[in-house]
Amino acid sequence: MHNCSYCTSSLLALNFVLFITIQTVRNQPMRNDKHKYLVIPGPVEVRPEILDAQTEWMIGHRSTAFADLFARLQTKLKQAFLTQNRVFVHGSSGTGLWEGASRNCIRDEARVLHLVGGAFSERWAQISEANGKQVDVITVEWGKAHTPEMVADALKKQTYDAVAFVHNETSTGVTNPVKDIAAVVRQASDETLVLVDSVSGFLGAELRTDDWGLDLVLTSSQKAFALPPGLAFASISDRVLERAKQIKHRGYYFDFIEINDSLQKNNTPSTPPVSLMFAADKQLDDILAETLERRWARHLQMRDTTLQWANQRGLAAFAQEGYRSPTVTTVANTIGFDVDAMAKFMGGKGFSMDKGYGKIKGKTFRIAHMGDMQIHTLEEVLSGLDEYLESVKN
Amino acid sequence: MHNCSYCTSSLLALNFVLFITIQTVRNQPMRNDKHKYLVIPGPVEVRPEILDAQTEWMIGHRSTAFADLFARLQTKLKQAFLTQNRVFVHGSSGTGLWEGASRNCIRDEARVLHLVGGAFSERWAQISEANGKQVDVITVEWGKAHTPEMVADALKKQTYDAVAFVHNETSTGVTNPVKDIAAVVRQASDETLVLVDSVSGFLGAELRTDDWGLDLVLTSSQKAFALPPGLAFASISDRVLERAKQIKHRGYYFDFIEINDSLQKNNTPSTPPVSLMFAADKQLDDILAETLERRWARHLQMRDTTLQWANQRGLAAFAQEGYRSPTVTTVANTIGFDVDAMAKFMGGKGFSMDKGYGKIKGKTFRIAHMGDMQIHTLEEVLSGLDEYLESVKN
Repeated sequence: MHNCSYCTSSLLALNFVLFITIQTVRNQPMRNDKHKYLVIPGPVEVRPEILDAQTEWMIGHRSTAFADLFARLQTKLKQAFLTQNRVFVHGSSGTGLWEGASRNCIRDEARVLHLVGGAFSERWAQISEANGKQVDVITVEWGKAHTPEMVADALKKQTYDAVAFVHNETSTGVTNPVKDIAAVVRQASDETLVLVDSVSGFLGAELRTDDWGLDLVLTSSQKAFALPPGLAFASISDRVLERAKQIKHRGYYFDFIEINDSLQKNNTPSTPPVSLMFAADKQLDDILAETLERRWARHLQMRDTTLQWANQRGLAAFAQEGYRSPTVTTVANTIGFDVDAMAKFMGGKGFSMDKGYGKIKGKTFRIAHMGDMQIHTLEEVLSGLDEYLESVKN
Repeated sequence: MHNCSYCTSSLLALNFVLFITIQTVRNQPMRNDKHKYLVIPGPVEVRPEILDAQTEWMIGHRSTAFADLFARLQTKLKQAFLTQNRVFVHGSSGTGLWEGASRNCIRDEARVLHLVGGAFSERWAQISEANGKQVDVITVEWGKAHTPEMVADALKKQTYDAVAFVHNETSTGVTNPVKDIAAVVRQASDETLVLVDSVSGFLGAELRTDDWGLDLVLTSSQKAFALPPGLAFASISDRVLERAKQIKHRGYYFDFIEINDSLQKNNTPSTPPVSLMFAADKQLDDILAETLERRWARHLQMRDTTLQWANQRGLAAFAQEGYRSPTVTTVANTIGFDVDAMAKFMGGKGFSMDKGYGKIKGKTFRIAHMGDMQIHTLEEVLSGLDEYLESVKN
């Protein structure tokens, strides 16, 4: 054995230098080490490798490299939406595509039926009105789902250009029976488009665009898709485009005809958020590798774990039984603890918590279990909440 | 001296390992090594440190951390726009804010005057029409600027809710005399808003929002701002908001009243592209450290270098003398060389070149000298072009 003491100490010193150097270099780019894991229902936690995927060198949006990127996304998005329809990739939040859906699908002389049961379904109806459309609503109490029967009744009394509703109401944690509602609409009239907001459902809750006959399904990047915000997506049927052609003032930024014309050339009418599209490209690979079925099952498992936990702690689900969301549980704060104090306590544990939304803020809080969250992380969250509940018992 | 041969070889081997390790780790995230530097007029080249700034951990847009980020951006953007007005930060391309300007500033019964002299000023006018607005245009030949006199004449014949024009027409390389046109509009009527698109001017060409009396200046992230695309910005005067209140159907995604209400709380109506805002935060620090004056001077120097080069090579500037853009030179291809072949040749040198836009494609090509490009990079581009011109002479 070689026993030179100089060698030994040199090697130790060098090992130390090597270790420090790797740590230093690895931390470029340096992320905030006080980060709290996002348990809020969007933006959700984004994995480091997806954050890093944004940093590819910029490319021109009229380049071959961009067309290739766009085509790859198109193929993968069709698999993710389970559709043969084209899927728009748009530089906006989901809110923007609400406006697009309203402007492109409802003729001026016609009416739209909005199903309202929470903050977000209500806002979409307001957006149709803000664009001068004639709106009827079926309103249910927050926490309740819409039933196919309600919709069938309404369609007997009035013909609509579209029925617009949410798959998953992010404020209440209710998942609507999309398949059954769509079937009722399809049966009632060939003129009525089925418009679905799946902002907080897509890639977390089962959604079968073509099997269920959905004309338009819109979503955004920062919910169960687990991407940074800034991109919105929508699957668009031929019927939607036929309708759009009959409407004169569709505007431009959300003009479905313009967007579709560009899409045929693997392009967009104006410059899109390219770095976010790089991230989407990688994230879709990972999602399709997991498979939709396993992803949906993972979300259901997290939902069930959360509901069981809430029941055992004397808390309740805010959403009606049978319609509880796989992606976000709105917990009715039946114990009446201080939600702000809970959030502060959980912040100390490294988790960023929600405190309820809109008119049910404080009376409820939401546990988002969506995106790339794994069951073991959810269990850490719930065990942190247990510690908090224990601490306020005394 | 210590002369153990085992030590010496070990140290050499370890040094090698250290070197390889650092190189490997440093390349995470790995960027495409076939990247071509973007000489196109947007998206422009983004520096690695700005690309990396996108990778900060995601945060909720209703968090204190987000409000702090928003407030920082607000302070710095006011300095960048040279304004006391609020500056909107929006998740869209500049095209989206065209739509916002048209919908919020033109009453249904009133008219807007668009100054058209290239592909982009023309599209903005079309967008006003697509939103049902009554549009008049003053059209000049591509390559020409609009004069204050033209605008003064038009304002004598008709009252307008707004005059909408571009600071810098990206297709032709013309910079309009914004200050003088604005002065004419301001003098003509208190009812007429001055709406300026500075998509490819802002942070490259001199622009003084308040001194020049500009009610609205809109821009996007991927031109002389040198950020990834996906964000748009607009400075908004009180007069604009007063006007917006008089318009019923402003829509929602670009509703200036909604955006302004949220802005008061350092927030946005819907989820914004947070990772791009991290990048903007850093980029604004660097831009303000350079100072606006030095940044404008650097762009002018690059413009002059490009014009001189073009003249000496028997090429010509497409834009009218006296109105040539500091950020992009549209070169009239008076030699008649094959622009596609030139772009291919330059691609081999590591540069992504433009081949002209719209109806002057091929007859012109554009050299973008904007954003964080330095004069030495431009000189490499021009010397590459010289090699190409030399190669086709024979």
